[in-house]
Amino acid sequence: MIILGVDPGSNFTGYAVIKNDKNIITRITSGVIKLPSVKSLSQKLEIIYDELNKIIRKHSPDEFVIETAFYGKNVQSTLKIGYVRGVSILAAAHNKVPVNEYSPREIKKAVVGNGAAAKEQVNFMVKNILKIDEKMKYDESDALAIALCHIFKMKTPTKKSGNWKAFVEAFPERVINS
Amino acid sequence: MIILGVDPGSNFTGYAVIKNDKNIITRITSGVIKLPSVKSLSQKLEIIYDELNKIIRKHSPDEFVIETAFYGKNVQSTLKIGYVRGVSILAAAHNKVPVNEYSPREIKKAVVGNGAAAKEQVNFMVKNILKIDEKMKYDESDALAIALCHIFKMKTPTKKSGNWKAFVEAFPERVINS
Repeated sequence: MIILGVDPGSNFTGYAVIKNDKNIITRITSGVIKLPSVKSLSQKLEIIYDELNKIIRKHSPDEFVIETAFYGKNVQSTLKIGYVRGVSILAAAHNKVPVNEYSPREIKKAVVGNGAAAKEQVNFMVKNILKIDEKMKYDESDALAIALCHIFKMKTPTKKSGNWKAFVEAFPERVINS
Repeated sequence: MIILGVDPGSNFTGYAVIKNDKNIITRITSGVIKLPSVKSLSQKLEIIYDELNKIIRKHSPDEFVIETAFYGKNVQSTLKIGYVRGVSILAAAHNKVPVNEYSPREIKKAVVGNGAAAKEQVNFMVKNILKIDEKMKYDESDALAIALCHIFKMKTPTKKSGNWKAFVEAFPERVINS
């Protein structure tokens, strides 16, 4: 199962494609889409849509995961996050990839074990889990954390996190045929 | 010159296509895109994008006009307005239609003469200006007001509202060749 995680931001949007193959989780690619500040809003939204569209077409993820409601510092920054989330979700929808959402707290709790973890801790844990040695920006490690969160949540289905069908598909070895 | 005005909303998005031909302004079409509340966010965003895309392809507007920052009642509603604005602007950008923005105050001031006008007044004035006799929803009359505002603003170029090139193209009869 291939997961695309996206950390939407009005200047930097992190993305991460990871693969879960029989509980072995590996990173396929990850990075940051930079939005040149000189561009107009419509140009910026086109860049995000186009880049995510390319990533989706290249890696054919089974699931798209994005952070829910990031509360901006003010109304303008909240609106900007809304624009970026809107076109990101549209890119997934146009490619028929199911969209999943988790709150920042759920993501941190799933990856670090603490819903109030700092970005440094998330960065450290993500690199540890995926055995990545290089330095990476928080936007990128956050996107990896978002994608990882979805895999961890699927392992223990709850009302909120998913359904048994997805679980069985992801972890066939955990089904006991009596 | 053909103008598409859009009034973005998370339940109802108004749209209006109007034409300015030598200072004679007529309505080509207008209406409301309804978003079924049962649909998921990604499905809603797809509907808005698809409908606006169809309208743009059918009427080939020269300019796209949208209301700036609507301040929602709370963070969630501000984010939702952000999503809808984001995908609306993307639909314009994908069709290479220039995007223009005006604040609610500028729009009311341009159409009613009072930046704090009520929706009823906007509705009344829009129907009066365009000689429309039918009843219409506020979402629709707001979209017409947004499109009209752009025409009125182009008539008197200022630093903010546009440029002389667009003005000359829109009102060639007002150029004095000495």
